[in-house]
Amino acid sequence: MEKSTLLIKPDPECESRWLAAMAPYADTVAVRLWPEVGAPAEVDFALLWAPPPGLLASLANLQAVFSIGAGVDNILRVPDLPRDVPLVRMVDKSLTEGMGEFVVYQCLRFHRGFHQYEAQQIARQWKAWPQTPAAQRRIGIMGLGELGGYAARQLCALGFTLRGWSRRPRAVGGVETFAGSGGLEKFLRGCDIVVCLLPLSPQTEKILNAKTLAMLPPGACVINAARGAHVDDAALLEALDRGHLKAAALDVFNEEPLPKGHPYWRHPKVTITPHAAAFTLPESAAAQVVENIRRHRRGEALSNLVDREAGY
Amino acid sequence: MEKSTLLIKPDPECESRWLAAMAPYADTVAVRLWPEVGAPAEVDFALLWAPPPGLLASLANLQAVFSIGAGVDNILRVPDLPRDVPLVRMVDKSLTEGMGEFVVYQCLRFHRGFHQYEAQQIARQWKAWPQTPAAQRRIGIMGLGELGGYAARQLCALGFTLRGWSRRPRAVGGVETFAGSGGLEKFLRGCDIVVCLLPLSPQTEKILNAKTLAMLPPGACVINAARGAHVDDAALLEALDRGHLKAAALDVFNEEPLPKGHPYWRHPKVTITPHAAAFTLPESAAAQVVENIRRHRRGEALSNLVDREAGY
Repeated sequence: MEKSTLLIKPDPECESRWLAAMAPYADTVAVRLWPEVGAPAEVDFALLWAPPPGLLASLANLQAVFSIGAGVDNILRVPDLPRDVPLVRMVDKSLTEGMGEFVVYQCLRFHRGFHQYEAQQIARQWKAWPQTPAAQRRIGIMGLGELGGYAARQLCALGFTLRGWSRRPRAVGGVETFAGSGGLEKFLRGCDIVVCLLPLSPQTEKILNAKTLAMLPPGACVINAARGAHVDDAALLEALDRGHLKAAALDVFNEEPLPKGHPYWRHPKVTITPHAAAFTLPESAAAQVVENIRRHRRGEALSNLVDREAGY
Repeated sequence: MEKSTLLIKPDPECESRWLAAMAPYADTVAVRLWPEVGAPAEVDFALLWAPPPGLLASLANLQAVFSIGAGVDNILRVPDLPRDVPLVRMVDKSLTEGMGEFVVYQCLRFHRGFHQYEAQQIARQWKAWPQTPAAQRRIGIMGLGELGGYAARQLCALGFTLRGWSRRPRAVGGVETFAGSGGLEKFLRGCDIVVCLLPLSPQTEKILNAKTLAMLPPGACVINAARGAHVDDAALLEALDRGHLKAAALDVFNEEPLPKGHPYWRHPKVTITPHAAAFTLPESAAAQVVENIRRHRRGEALSNLVDREAGY
């Protein structure tokens, strides 16, 4: 069978790792590294995170677009995304595991007050805080796909009480689930810690706003590892400042890198990580992309296909 | 059956919680709260953490001593501990779970470099660090009893590679185990993160010293949630300062509270928590103590009996 041509546009610092990870599949896939596109009509598949304007429209024979990240909002928002080309999201073991690590870490941090101990160390203050049994801590996960489901299972194993919310109803073992705009308030009212892992779509943009944050119980904590645009920053700052919320851990922001002057940087209740919750590792992801290309060539359906209407 | 008399000496801030937790068992157990001992000869059982000198010797009819904490070193070192009275360690769900939370949290923190992100936030620095797959991170647990076994299982579920060391050989599913002084070097040479959960005994005192810390791979991290006396502080500081070790998270210290002038407080590579890794919750522990008293009264063997020779 003829080789397929795959154009890759990774983060610049990952280029050599993607090339090395693809090398074992040279029989199946000829790799081109953006911006060395070559003859655009020869490109069969594209693997990227944020396509530059005009790139996708220039690839006349494109058969599928693979996202390097779990989210596809950066691709869906490109005006020249061809209508009929299938879009595939990344489901990668390292990405899922990394996000699980981030969520478990931040939940334990707020659950046990480790953020308070950090402040106490600076003040050389020796003061222990009471320990609440995990079963009495209600953690709510927004978004119950690959990432949310995995994080929920890990938190269940640690004894926490889990609830979950998604736009469309979903069942997850051990998790009390809620769905749709009708279920959101009931969900939020029972979350001591809420974790946003939603895909970004017009329906989920600014889903954490003044109205919904007010639905959280007093003293609740917010963790956002999805997209900055899920959060109304002014509303979150206001809820933290008036004491309704205890703390927030934010990995994603409306503008990235977070501008030097942004109030989040020095806010005593805000913990910042630089969009580093989880990464797709080329070493584990390459095999999956190649397998999907082989499926497509055999005429089989692509795995992890995006529903463009839903946005994920 | 006549009631047993139980003398409790908890941390002062937990007194009312212990009294409330024991209230449902008033048919079985008459509680006395230290220092209101009453007639010492009437005391059948003692539940305490650090007995004041002379107390245990004064209880002429003592049938068993229950430790409020997982460790019994504070009781074993009391010179007037009666030789023939059984000593029982605390095995409590909340204590086990709390220690698991502490260990998982500190391991994730070092595994993913969250301690570096904390420093970066202060400097308003936006810089992501590479993500190492959990399977490539080798975490070594010293002490494979109730606490170590539970922590190991939680870390296994997150995908880490686990190894374990104990004085006497023990098998733990999914964990490569080593035992005795003969197995210590081989164990330590393969630990990217080492967690001390050992009981304190003459054999384990200063087990983390200049010689053993040098056996850890360069860049390793140390977590101590057992006893301060397990660590030679000067050796740990030296290993951190010369760059052999990357970081340490310490919950326990040779002197507690940690003296204001101690170099640990301001050391950039040391994270301090105030002996707060895990607490026995009276609410869950009371039932277990009462059940053990009932067993003893029925002539059955006590659960969680300490081997005084071994020290745990």
